[in-house]
Order: sequence, then structure tokens, then C-alpha cells
Amino acid sequence: MKVLIVGGTGIIGKAVVQELLSDHEVVTAGYRSGDVQVDVTSEDSIKALFETQKNVDAVVSATGQVRFAPLETLDDEAYQFSLQNKLMGQVNLVRIGMQYLNDKGSFTLTSGVLNHDPIYMGTTASMVNGAIEGFVRAAAIELPRGLRINCVSPTVISEAMEAYAPYFKGFKPVSAAEAALAYRKSIDGLLNGEVFRVGY
Amino acid sequence: MKVLIVGGTGIIGKAVVQELLSDHEVVTAGYRSGDVQVDVTSEDSIKALFETQKNVDAVVSATGQVRFAPLETLDDEAYQFSLQNKLMGQVNLVRIGMQYLNDKGSFTLTSGVLNHDPIYMGTTASMVNGAIEGFVRAAAIELPRGLRINCVSPTVISEAMEAYAPYFKGFKPVSAAEAALAYRKSIDGLLNGEVFRVGY
Repeated sequence: MKVLIVGGTGIIGKAVVQELLSDHEVVTAGYRSGDVQVDVTSEDSIKALFETQKNVDAVVSATGQVRFAPLETLDDEAYQFSLQNKLMGQVNLVRIGMQYLNDKGSFTLTSGVLNHDPIYMGTTASMVNGAIEGFVRAAAIELPRGLRINCVSPTVISEAMEAYAPYFKGFKPVSAAEAALAYRKSIDGLLNGEVFRVGY
Repeated sequence: MKVLIVGGTGIIGKAVVQELLSDHEVVTAGYRSGDVQVDVTSEDSIKALFETQKNVDAVVSATGQVRFAPLETLDDEAYQFSLQNKLMGQVNLVRIGMQYLNDKGSFTLTSGVLNHDPIYMGTTASMVNGAIEGFVRAAAIELPRGLRINCVSPTVISEAMEAYAPYFKGFKPVSAAEAALAYRKSIDGLLNGEVFRVGY
């Protein structure tokens, strides 16, 4: 299969590349890095990506930012940035990509543990992760041409603990390689509309 | 307690008013109707509401619209409208209201069954409901001054079935009065960060 990994040079993205390289054709996309560039907040940029990358069978989205800040300091801008970036960036990939993907292709998005296990300063992440999971469950029943969609919800990733440890105290991290297995399961399996929790 | 019911003239809102009237002071707020007017998509309008309505102990939000449409026809506007209205409208009530509510006050938001049990044309509803539930779980652990927040997630309401029956085939509806009990539980109880499912 031809697999397009958006966010393919990030910690999770790189592990998904490693997991899939042996038996899939992998193309990485990133805002600045990767084989090809894409800005997931731009409809035109996503269209250009799929016009350039033909015959994609699977899209992995391991991208998206949210604003971490105390609840009392979250302003409208912080919520809007988080919604437009991690949520709508991934929704846009599906909304536009569903017109281009090969029949029976798949989307695998990324949410995260904070929807179910919140932390200090993590409100926008919890909110956006909840939205992604709701979107995936619903989009799954309407996708045309045998297309599927799932979501991977990993706990904090070991390789990210250097930066995240102060915020995820008491969390047992999981390796990016283990998280990558869930993306593999989504791509090579037949499940649809599922949230694959990893490490929790 | 003084309870402010935003969306207090809607099907659920009216039932919450009935449930609470016997032992609470109830003020209804609506876009056009109700005791007082508020536009929950406007920060200024919400501030004006709380400046006018002093000493509120509990805010109920039974308001918010999303765009129902087939997945393949949902454009950016449909997603944005749904996010800004049902999601950010309710988030705004919390974000601004938390500065005004009496100590130990509570917020009770409204999501809905579609996050867990999706239907045709319901993608934006599923997405927004998931976001509300994630937001509630996270905000709950950071609210100051003993403030609490919960969310009621009802299945389709009997009194709304005249309009909704074609979309909710096979769903067992629940009366607005039964849904209202969950709001009562949130307001008069001590739970925090919970999603109260009603009728499913």
C-alpha cells in the first residue's frame, strides 16, 4: 500500500514510518520537513498534496498542536488555535482526502490520553481529543467507497518525556514503537470507527 | 440557590425549569426569549449577562446548534458553525462565568448521545459532543473556589421526536422531564467532571 504519513518526521510519525517501511510504500509529509510539505490548516495546501501524491491507500495523521495553559488563563485565542490546528487540521485531511483516497483506503488520526485522564493545563487537549474521537466514530459510518477511519489515542510517549515529564507525573509512558503498532493495526486491519488506546 | 438556565425556553430547558422551580430561584436566558437575553457566541454578551445577574450559584447550559448534513457535503463552514455555536458557546459560558459564579457554584453543560452512538448526518454533532465531554472532564480538575462542572448527555428527547424521528430510527427516546433529573443531580449533588448519560 501507499501510505501518506502527515507529521511523519515527528516522534510518533518516525516510529510509524519504521513500523511500515518493510512492506509499504511510505511518503512523509510535514509543515517544513518530510518528503512533501503540507499545511493542514489550509484547504488549498491539502488539495495540492493529494493532487501531487496520487493513489494513496492510507493516510496517517500524527500532527497537530494545542495550547497548554492553566484553565483560568485560557482565552478565546487559545481555544481557537487548538481547534483549528489539532482538530480541524486532521478533519480537513479527511474531508478533502476522502475525495482522493483509493477505494477501501483508510485514515488513522491521533487523539491522546488526556480526553480520558486530564492533567493541569491540558483543557484544550482534552477538548480536542474528545472531538477527534467523536468525529472518527461518526465519519466511520458515512465514508464512501469502503473507506475506513480510526484513531490512535496514546498515553504520553517515552521519547517525549524529556519535555513532558513535569506535566505527566505518575503517567507510565509508552514507546513510540509500541504506539506505532496501533497505526499498523488500523491500516492493515479491517476495523472502522475505533479508538485504539495505547498504554492505558 | 440561584440557577441561570441558558436555553431555558427550549424543550430541555423548560423541563429543567419545572424540575427546579420548587426549591430554587430560576432565571431563564435565551437568544431572543427567556427572562434575560444572551448570545453565547459573544464574549461581551456573556459578560453583560453575568454583570446583570449577580450571585448566580449554578449555570445550566441547554443551548447550542450544529449543522446536520451528510459527511460528503460538510464544508468548512458547517464544521466551524458547529464548533463556534454548540461547543464554544458553552465553553464561553464557563470561561467567563467562572469569574462571576458564587463559591462552590456549578456549571452543567449539554452534550448528547451522538458522541457514542452516531447517526447519518450527525458528524458535527458527534464531534462537538465529544469535545464538550473532554472539556468538562479537564476543566473540572482546575476550576477555582470549589466550582464544579458536569455534563448531561441525553439520548433523543421524546418531545423532539416529531422533528427528529426520521434521523433517530430505532432510538428509544427519553422524556425531557427525565433528562431534567440529571441536571438536578449535577446542581444539587457534589459530583464533578462527570458525564451523566440519560436514557442510554
